[in-house]
Amino acid sequence: MLMNPFLMNIDFKSGDLKPNDRTNIRKLSNMKGMFLDTESERRILESGDPLIYSFSEKVLPEEPGHLQIAMTSINPGKVGQEYYMTKGHYHKLAHTSEVYLGLEGRGCLLMQTGDGIFASLDIRPGVLAYIPPFWGHRMVNTGNTPFIFFAVYPGDAGHNYGDIEKTGFAKILVERNGETFLANNPRWKKGSSF
Amino acid sequence: MLMNPFLMNIDFKSGDLKPNDRTNIRKLSNMKGMFLDTESERRILESGDPLIYSFSEKVLPEEPGHLQIAMTSINPGKVGQEYYMTKGHYHKLAHTSEVYLGLEGRGCLLMQTGDGIFASLDIRPGVLAYIPPFWGHRMVNTGNTPFIFFAVYPGDAGHNYGDIEKTGFAKILVERNGETFLANNPRWKKGSSF
Repeated sequence: MLMNPFLMNIDFKSGDLKPNDRTNIRKLSNMKGMFLDTESERRILESGDPLIYSFSEKVLPEEPGHLQIAMTSINPGKVGQEYYMTKGHYHKLAHTSEVYLGLEGRGCLLMQTGDGIFASLDIRPGVLAYIPPFWGHRMVNTGNTPFIFFAVYPGDAGHNYGDIEKTGFAKILVERNGETFLANNPRWKKGSSF
Repeated sequence: MLMNPFLMNIDFKSGDLKPNDRTNIRKLSNMKGMFLDTESERRILESGDPLIYSFSEKVLPEEPGHLQIAMTSINPGKVGQEYYMTKGHYHKLAHTSEVYLGLEGRGCLLMQTGDGIFASLDIRPGVLAYIPPFWGHRMVNTGNTPFIFFAVYPGDAGHNYGDIEKTGFAKILVERNGETFLANNPRWKKGSSF
């Protein structure tokens, strides 16, 4: 069956993608245990359940040859010293890449292979990141405004969230004394991610 | 071999992609016979060889799972009544898609299947077009300033320029009496594209 071409409108400032088929909401309660400071997490959840990030997608065939499109907006904020971030994932088809394009705000892309090789890249508006095959990836908002980016990846890539959920990345991004830096994640064990 | 993640910088206004591995130049002499009005083409070439468009690419593996990235800038101008445009192509792997994102200026995306089904979409900054499998595609600058867009497509898609070079698309985009419209291409024959 031939699919017809179509348009979507991206608002670079707000991150809106219209029309879209699905907007996914990730509140703090959806990310329990993913931030290091579980005591801060508990305290925050006592008085509310802040929106960490949301992403809008078009439903496209999960087939080779197709592409997937997503717009993500990560709110500014921290849980303890750790900046708001996405859950992060590997691709189910581990040999598939992803392209991120920063549109608004400032952030950092954390990446890691299953062997525990770690990399990070600063993302700003107009910065395009190429995430090659085999690199798990997580975006972090290091600014004071929403961090908005556009993503394209192969149609059949799929998501593997489970391995990141177990131990996170080798490093976490924190603010201490007004400085942003990568700290070792004490929960992470080499070779434990998969 | 594990590839390392990397960054590139996109200038949304100028279309610069830095660093890139290859910038390709298409002057009028590189597109001989692709515009309908060959008499106008001949006259223009007597006094120069204008740049129609250029595109910058990163060299990435032409393999399944990877993605390809390109930034294109089409100059404003016409050959006779027909607006400056890209050569246009199908993908060598016909079942592969492409995503275009308009960044600056205004243009129109012409698409056609091998069976001669035709479609067009207006592109503006912030407009994302999804070109599904099997659709050949050509971008046209319908404005008075450079038309700049970003493209992502599967790593192994490849290009098939030959079929478009033979007969073009079923429709061409022209300006007559200050109006932009799609005219039938008298050179095109149904079923002749492949």
